[in-house]
Amino acid sequence: MGLKKELIFSSNNEVKVSIQDHFWSSYIDLVRNVVIPYQWQALNDEIEGAEPSHAIKNFQIAAGLEEGEHYGMVFQDSDVAKWMEAVGYLLAKESDYELEALADCVIDVIAAAQQPDGYLNTYYTVKEPDKRWSNLCECHELYCAGHMIEAAVAYFLGTGKRKLLDVVIRLADYIDTVFGPEPHQIQGYDGHQEIELALVKLYRVTGNERYLKLSTYFLEQRGQGDFYLDEYEKRGRSTFWPAINVIHDKKYSQTHVPIREQHSAEGHAVRAVYMATGIADVAIESKDQSLVETCQRLWNNIVNKRMYITGGIGSMAYGESFSLDYDLPNDTVYAETCASIGLIFFAQRMLQIAPKSEYADVLERALYNTVIAGMSKDGKHFFYVNPLEVWPEACGINHNYEHVKPERQGWFGCACCPPNIARLLASLDQYMYTIQDNRLYTHLYIGGDAELIVGGQSVTLHQSSNLPWEGRVHFTVRTTNSVTFTLALRVPDWSQGAELKINGQPVDWKEAIDNGYACIHREWLPNDEVEWVLCMPVLRMKGHPLLRESIGKVAIQRGPLVYCLEEADNGKQLHQLRLQASTEAIVTMNPELLGGIGTLQIPGLRDCNEQWGDALYKPNEEFMQEPIMATFIPYFAWANRGLGEMSVWVRD
Amino acid sequence: MGLKKELIFSSNNEVKVSIQDHFWSSYIDLVRNVVIPYQWQALNDEIEGAEPSHAIKNFQIAAGLEEGEHYGMVFQDSDVAKWMEAVGYLLAKESDYELEALADCVIDVIAAAQQPDGYLNTYYTVKEPDKRWSNLCECHELYCAGHMIEAAVAYFLGTGKRKLLDVVIRLADYIDTVFGPEPHQIQGYDGHQEIELALVKLYRVTGNERYLKLSTYFLEQRGQGDFYLDEYEKRGRSTFWPAINVIHDKKYSQTHVPIREQHSAEGHAVRAVYMATGIADVAIESKDQSLVETCQRLWNNIVNKRMYITGGIGSMAYGESFSLDYDLPNDTVYAETCASIGLIFFAQRMLQIAPKSEYADVLERALYNTVIAGMSKDGKHFFYVNPLEVWPEACGINHNYEHVKPERQGWFGCACCPPNIARLLASLDQYMYTIQDNRLYTHLYIGGDAELIVGGQSVTLHQSSNLPWEGRVHFTVRTTNSVTFTLALRVPDWSQGAELKINGQPVDWKEAIDNGYACIHREWLPNDEVEWVLCMPVLRMKGHPLLRESIGKVAIQRGPLVYCLEEADNGKQLHQLRLQASTEAIVTMNPELLGGIGTLQIPGLRDCNEQWGDALYKPNEEFMQEPIMATFIPYFAWANRGLGEMSVWVRD
Repeated sequence: MGLKKELIFSSNNEVKVSIQDHFWSSYIDLVRNVVIPYQWQALNDEIEGAEPSHAIKNFQIAAGLEEGEHYGMVFQDSDVAKWMEAVGYLLAKESDYELEALADCVIDVIAAAQQPDGYLNTYYTVKEPDKRWSNLCECHELYCAGHMIEAAVAYFLGTGKRKLLDVVIRLADYIDTVFGPEPHQIQGYDGHQEIELALVKLYRVTGNERYLKLSTYFLEQRGQGDFYLDEYEKRGRSTFWPAINVIHDKKYSQTHVPIREQHSAEGHAVRAVYMATGIADVAIESKDQSLVETCQRLWNNIVNKRMYITGGIGSMAYGESFSLDYDLPNDTVYAETCASIGLIFFAQRMLQIAPKSEYADVLERALYNTVIAGMSKDGKHFFYVNPLEVWPEACGINHNYEHVKPERQGWFGCACCPPNIARLLASLDQYMYTIQDNRLYTHLYIGGDAELIVGGQSVTLHQSSNLPWEGRVHFTVRTTNSVTFTLALRVPDWSQGAELKINGQPVDWKEAIDNGYACIHREWLPNDEVEWVLCMPVLRMKGHPLLRESIGKVAIQRGPLVYCLEEADNGKQLHQLRLQASTEAIVTMNPELLGGIGTLQIPGLRDCNEQWGDALYKPNEEFMQEPIMATFIPYFAWANRGLGEMSVWVRD
Repeated sequence: MGLKKELIFSSNNEVKVSIQDHFWSSYIDLVRNVVIPYQWQALNDEIEGAEPSHAIKNFQIAAGLEEGEHYGMVFQDSDVAKWMEAVGYLLAKESDYELEALADCVIDVIAAAQQPDGYLNTYYTVKEPDKRWSNLCECHELYCAGHMIEAAVAYFLGTGKRKLLDVVIRLADYIDTVFGPEPHQIQGYDGHQEIELALVKLYRVTGNERYLKLSTYFLEQRGQGDFYLDEYEKRGRSTFWPAINVIHDKKYSQTHVPIREQHSAEGHAVRAVYMATGIADVAIESKDQSLVETCQRLWNNIVNKRMYITGGIGSMAYGESFSLDYDLPNDTVYAETCASIGLIFFAQRMLQIAPKSEYADVLERALYNTVIAGMSKDGKHFFYVNPLEVWPEACGINHNYEHVKPERQGWFGCACCPPNIARLLASLDQYMYTIQDNRLYTHLYIGGDAELIVGGQSVTLHQSSNLPWEGRVHFTVRTTNSVTFTLALRVPDWSQGAELKINGQPVDWKEAIDNGYACIHREWLPNDEVEWVLCMPVLRMKGHPLLRESIGKVAIQRGPLVYCLEEADNGKQLHQLRLQASTEAIVTMNPELLGGIGTLQIPGLRDCNEQWGDALYKPNEEFMQEPIMATFIPYFAWANRGLGEMSVWVRD
């Protein structure tokens, strides 16, 4: 695989990116100005009508600063950690003394909640101090530790402040004494994967190989023996989540076989992709080819057999889980926002292992569709579940749709998704570029400056982009002297051709394709201009013939955006619509609509019910049809105009 | 509505039918020779590998004849009652001293289990004798009483023996003292409707108006006040079925509004149609027009908005319930066998209220499709749930299909469906004819003799029929003298024309149509021959344009039979099949296949996956197509050739 140690830090350290983008800057500003303050209020139970969080209070109680009981999920601590992580990313980009002072206060409380031996978890500290590590399977102690480690690393890199980093170093050192192969240690592993990828981050920032080794231990121990069952017996068969049989359902937690024997993405989707991310992280460090192959197998299974066209993963509400190959129901779907975020983490690591455009294609698909669909434009309403087809009238009645909400909700008692969106968007700059083999890979076309050192010389690549509405991307190379390197431009899977001009001169790039990137190697001079115009036709996407739910239908995609039909534009009974074959779509930019979105119009027919009568079934009857113009909006913008039907797939 | 008292008994008393039919006799023989003995074994826990029943033992324990604990469902008694009811129907047709002696022994035990005050219920007698009537909502005492009444009436009519009838008279008299408007009585009603229709049967056989009044009381009390909640509070908020919130979910038990205000079929499907049947029974007796209208409303809602093309009802597993209008998912469907049987009861009563062919059309649809699909040809395996689309690989994995079994099961712990099939088939003769206004209505075309008295003179109408394979029906009028009456021949909704000949001479019947029946009024002479040849083309049925699940698809029907695709004939991936427009179907009779069934072949195309490659989604791609000949078998015969896919609806 040609992994090189110096490349590992490429996305974090070697390319310093600042985003100034017509599309994405508003999301990042929203995170900074609305989401983070709103989530702070949520964590402190200051939002009227929202389910209480109690997450900050839990730390205060554990620290002895307040009286009271622990409240909330057993993994409530992670909400604070994810908030802190996002704050770290924001402070890295722009100083904000008030926010930093607030975060420092929280860190003081967290530090005070840490036990003398390094243990840190408010649920067990407050509620069951003698039951630490008695229910790894269900009780998320290592998951919470992982998130706190991620937060500490982000906050350290963002502010240079070590206090939280030192807390998590003590925590990780303590965990390292508890778990391991020695007889006095627990030969176990976490219930919800997260600490694996976090420990690699801690290793990278500290250089302490213990953490890499511990991460590897957790991964390799997974699926060995019957650890969850053993601890279950040991604690007297008590169970925390009786509704889901996580102790016995080994696939749910990816413990059915050791990781190197896992050939498909099974069980809880977030766990599965967090685990895959951790495996990839360890593979990058260890160069263990068998781990790389494990990642590749899991990746292929997800993207070729178990992923919605929106980049959503997880077909069923039960266990928020994967189900089986080619089982992708659009209406009873789960497709949790967090799972798509985890898929983006996994894709990012796969790009670090080997830059192939297919990884970035999936990253982009999940980002532009499921992830930003997961948050409203006001930054205060969120989707957990991201259906591809909604019939609101049925949602409240047919229990198969009980988990499907036709409108974004406020804060949740189990608030995993909102802070996950925040930390991803706040660190979006980390997903745009990588450097490998003297090549600068451009994975996402998002405007801004990328600073990097090439041959000891500082270069800034200034990007501007009209995505996702138009395919025009422009780069300016800002350097004081000429520099030689390869600019590797991703050719997205949705582009049906692209034109490249350098300083106004057409350049043939097709010969220079490598793994889906147009690799332009040259001596770049100051102010060299690169025009990269991606052809962005309206695509009628078909699903694999083994996909039952999309047969006879198409999904409309243009650029990275998947589009959908909404009742607001097309009336009720979206299933009655059919697109006409071989008709052109009208592409319109609507500055006033939903903050400015492109829409598509495609001629079609509606099977009408007006003249049918009452009979539920009729023989040999043709439907009355009326010509219609079907209007599509980007999927991410759905459910912003009141309750209504929505559908991604439409009959062809 | 022109209801006449003397017509009430028409189907039971005025027409005595014996079935000798090439299609149905084998089912009835199966019930007699296999199902009833098998169910007897099941009730006595003599079937290896089956879930235990304990139902007979419960009665023995309650009678003080055995030691032990009650075991099984709170409504386990009803399994014995339904078995006994079927035995009554069988003994009415053909004496069987062994079976009758066995039944008499059971009746002795049942009688001994009855308490001195008339109370009869093994669960409460054995387990919680001081808690009688404390949980009407959940604990089915009145439901079990209803089934025992039905059994007693059937056994009395079948054998002339009164012992069980006297038991249920004491039981009903006792219940009549417990429930009612007086202050010392319970102003309540049953949780699972059944006793309403049973009390009308008891009224008819005894002439005691108390029972009709009590039935009316239960129906009219339903949905008044908050009875379930009141008794819940009174008993200290204990609940029996915590998984389903039946106490608070008023629609589940049709208690959301009083019955006359119910406009749609809601909640548990079996309860809903048993209730509707009871309302119709009371309406027939009372001539209460508001009850007739209630029945008509519920009927219209079911058959025009909430019924599968197979005559299945109940769209969701949660609560075995109706959901909302036009919500008929084919794969996550419930469509319980018992619910279709209840729909047949309801249809039979609607025919008694007013003979309209639409009632018989639905009766026939449910009977020829869902009901007989519910039992295997060996009489020992049963479907509870009758899906219209099955992907067996997904059934064990995706929890949305957890309730869907791709193969018929043996005995169940909750064994409502098997004995329900048995009692329906054993009494099928009661569904064929009614007499009204000097008209003999033929609702089902099933061979056999119908004896009736016309103008004081005995007439036997001998029917032979080639249904469901061919539309040829033949009647011979056997009488010693000429008799004048109207033979009202149903024109089924599936026939696209019919030819009528009397004694070889064509007769124009189209002028004589009344409510879907060709009403042939004449003076019939001995040995008059009637040929009634129904046109039986292969129909491509479409669903109402508001039905999401059938849009763009057709279901194939010929005669009363709905057909389906099976993997055994068409390979896997049935969703890939499409029928070609305007092609003729080949109709074949296959004497060797599954006991002799007709099959249909229709040319079509398959969207192939061989050349598609791995990608899950592709732009503007056409599928490779190969011509195929799609083979359809009758829906009732599905799942008899090993695990495989099945689909009723196919793309057009």
